[in-house]
Amino acid sequence: MTDLARHKVLLDESEMPTQWYNLVADLPSPPPAVLHPGTGRPAGPEDFLPLFPMSLIEQEVSTERYIEIPGEVLDVYRQWRPSPMYRAHRWERALGTPARIYYKYEGVSPAGSHKPNTAVAQAYYNAKAGVRRLTTETGAGQWGTSLAFAAALFGLECEVWQVGASYDQKPYRRMMIETFGATVHRSPSNLTESGRRLRATDPEHPGSLGIAISEAVEVAAADPHTRYALGSVLNHVLLHQTIIGQEALAQMAKFGDTPDVIVGCTGGGSNFAGLAFPFLREKLAGRIDPTIRAVEPTSCPSLTQGVYAYDFGDEAGLTPLMKMHTLGHGFIPDPIHAGGLRYHGMSPLISHVYEQSMIEALALGQTECFRAGVQFARTEGIVPAPESAHAIAAAAREAEAARATGQETVILIALSGHGHFDLSAYDDYLSGRMVDEVTSDERFAASLVDLPTVAG
Amino acid sequence: MTDLARHKVLLDESEMPTQWYNLVADLPSPPPAVLHPGTGRPAGPEDFLPLFPMSLIEQEVSTERYIEIPGEVLDVYRQWRPSPMYRAHRWERALGTPARIYYKYEGVSPAGSHKPNTAVAQAYYNAKAGVRRLTTETGAGQWGTSLAFAAALFGLECEVWQVGASYDQKPYRRMMIETFGATVHRSPSNLTESGRRLRATDPEHPGSLGIAISEAVEVAAADPHTRYALGSVLNHVLLHQTIIGQEALAQMAKFGDTPDVIVGCTGGGSNFAGLAFPFLREKLAGRIDPTIRAVEPTSCPSLTQGVYAYDFGDEAGLTPLMKMHTLGHGFIPDPIHAGGLRYHGMSPLISHVYEQSMIEALALGQTECFRAGVQFARTEGIVPAPESAHAIAAAAREAEAARATGQETVILIALSGHGHFDLSAYDDYLSGRMVDEVTSDERFAASLVDLPTVAG
Repeated sequence: MTDLARHKVLLDESEMPTQWYNLVADLPSPPPAVLHPGTGRPAGPEDFLPLFPMSLIEQEVSTERYIEIPGEVLDVYRQWRPSPMYRAHRWERALGTPARIYYKYEGVSPAGSHKPNTAVAQAYYNAKAGVRRLTTETGAGQWGTSLAFAAALFGLECEVWQVGASYDQKPYRRMMIETFGATVHRSPSNLTESGRRLRATDPEHPGSLGIAISEAVEVAAADPHTRYALGSVLNHVLLHQTIIGQEALAQMAKFGDTPDVIVGCTGGGSNFAGLAFPFLREKLAGRIDPTIRAVEPTSCPSLTQGVYAYDFGDEAGLTPLMKMHTLGHGFIPDPIHAGGLRYHGMSPLISHVYEQSMIEALALGQTECFRAGVQFARTEGIVPAPESAHAIAAAAREAEAARATGQETVILIALSGHGHFDLSAYDDYLSGRMVDEVTSDERFAASLVDLPTVAG
Repeated sequence: MTDLARHKVLLDESEMPTQWYNLVADLPSPPPAVLHPGTGRPAGPEDFLPLFPMSLIEQEVSTERYIEIPGEVLDVYRQWRPSPMYRAHRWERALGTPARIYYKYEGVSPAGSHKPNTAVAQAYYNAKAGVRRLTTETGAGQWGTSLAFAAALFGLECEVWQVGASYDQKPYRRMMIETFGATVHRSPSNLTESGRRLRATDPEHPGSLGIAISEAVEVAAADPHTRYALGSVLNHVLLHQTIIGQEALAQMAKFGDTPDVIVGCTGGGSNFAGLAFPFLREKLAGRIDPTIRAVEPTSCPSLTQGVYAYDFGDEAGLTPLMKMHTLGHGFIPDPIHAGGLRYHGMSPLISHVYEQSMIEALALGQTECFRAGVQFARTEGIVPAPESAHAIAAAAREAEAARATGQETVILIALSGHGHFDLSAYDDYLSGRMVDEVTSDERFAASLVDLPTVAG
């Protein structure tokens, strides 16, 4: 068996990376500062203290290239890490492509996605700082599940505001979060000012990630023993995910192959960054030269249709201002099945490297993604999460281009998770009920008029 | 890090066993013959040909110690095998036990359980024999999912009769089977004589595994291009599962430990046999001496409450007669959440070794199992299938006994699958709605009066 004939490369737990990688250290220019919403001036650590412990704030602004992973966090990671990397032999055959397709699979984690990589770290640092309770939002439910699990391990209470539409459609996710011991609230809820304001207009309001964030932030800021945890977007969250890409570099080397194209789906951006940033480090150093492509849904295309501007991270405008690709903090995307991609903004760090042309972006409709997801399931045996199916569909496009040209393109996919809780979406697709939502240019434009004005 | 401090042992795909192990070769006496239901005489291969290809019939009656796994089957196994073995460090701490607990986890497979180990083999042999369509039954849905996946890989059509109660309560399983490309029928259905007979008395009949088997067998026997596939009970099915225990022996050796107690849940018995039989080989050879314990639900306790007698494998009496522990082929267990354990009989081979006192048996109520399952989830990060939770609860009893005596008991659990499609059961448990069904001795006795009479 040659290495290229292998089906997978598993690393031993002794080969697991012991540091996170901070891309900021290797960028020619740093990303723009985060601003205080009241003063319009760069926010200091004290502005974040009501929400995060100092250790995480330090990581958020760090320019160190590597940050040690605490032993207690490594100890939990060893439950499922290093995660496997697979060669998609059977899917390649079904596609009839000369391309070689690899996927780094995060679905083996307790929550079934990449999210526990940061949830465990955040729960650890909060517990160490004496915090008693964590609040957070969740859309598709992966993040809420992850934080519930991590909070249980470190003895923290955990309250999750779940986007109303997901709460109604995906009861199994709520049940899984509760099985791990956390409390789930349908968002918008009656428990917060932000929630009550929206419920006054519509008691059945379907919610959004931006709204759920407002609620969780509001509750955390009001209690000195409570802090907030975010599942994507911020630098420290992306940092914690870089263990994925570091493992993937070692696994590609064991396969004896080098990626020409790397694809990952982007909602807030943490799964994409987790795989891509360590490869971007190698690219910036001139050692490899892959195309790195973020894949977003056409219904929420912050990179390809949004503007690069300062905006709030939440609907109510409670967070500091971040310069990022945004569709406007009031934008509520159509209810596609990839709930984890329905966020108005994009990680400031990813927005920054996108502006610098270090990465590309592509927007795809959901039916194309589910078509690719079903073919992937029937050949590789993994039903992908709808979010991950966006990356699979982008890979399928590359594989088809390779078939046309005869080129042996090497494709690496960030397969962020499984779709065990998204089967009603597959049911919709298979029964022909799924449509591609078409968002008008007017609607995209309308939500941008509320962008906050920033002095200077 | 000493070996005992490890969290898991992953084997490389090059270390995967290439043979299945046949326990029959090492037994002091063979299990009793299968009988033709009409003549009452030992059934010959020709009696099985309407249902199975000759290659599987040969495996069913083989006395060879090892049977080569075909390369095409190994090729598919490599997708998820060797499966991981974990040390349950965090759960041990939560239990406060000096016991060392290991679990061999089959939930990493495409279906989320051990079932694909035999589904892939059966689909391969059927495809090779020119069969075009497979029929089968499914209860909890693991087996239907597994056969759907395997059939897709080898280009076979697949039709699944799903126990009505499961079909109604677990729509996600139906959707997953369809995502893999198979067709699902609610059982009892209008498509068969067996189904129509029961629907005449109750159009909403909740069904049972025995009924679903009758339907799938009836359809297969009526069409020369269709064969039937069974997910447990039979010798060749147990044979295919023995890859689990062979891997586990290698993994325990890498941990540097030897099990004192091995526990696995039993419905038809294939998951239990898969882990236990290779260890039983070592026990029979005098190299180790573990207690090997089958764990069944109190609502369907074929080993601890059933009789050892010839009975049919299905409700309608279409199958050959097998000598096994049985509650009677007409027994319909209370609707507990562990659908995979609701089968009236026990594998003849397991019944035989139980009769010979090579293994023990224990029946547990479901609330005890879910209590253990929740604690396991919150510490180990895996929400176990309700079936697997029976093994976990039995392990918890051993761990508590070890705490009382101070003994460092080494426990090995067959963790047959995850509970991602069983979260409504956890919801019932957490909200206090779950009860332990109590089946009266009269009800057990009543279903035994219909046991077939066997001459001699």
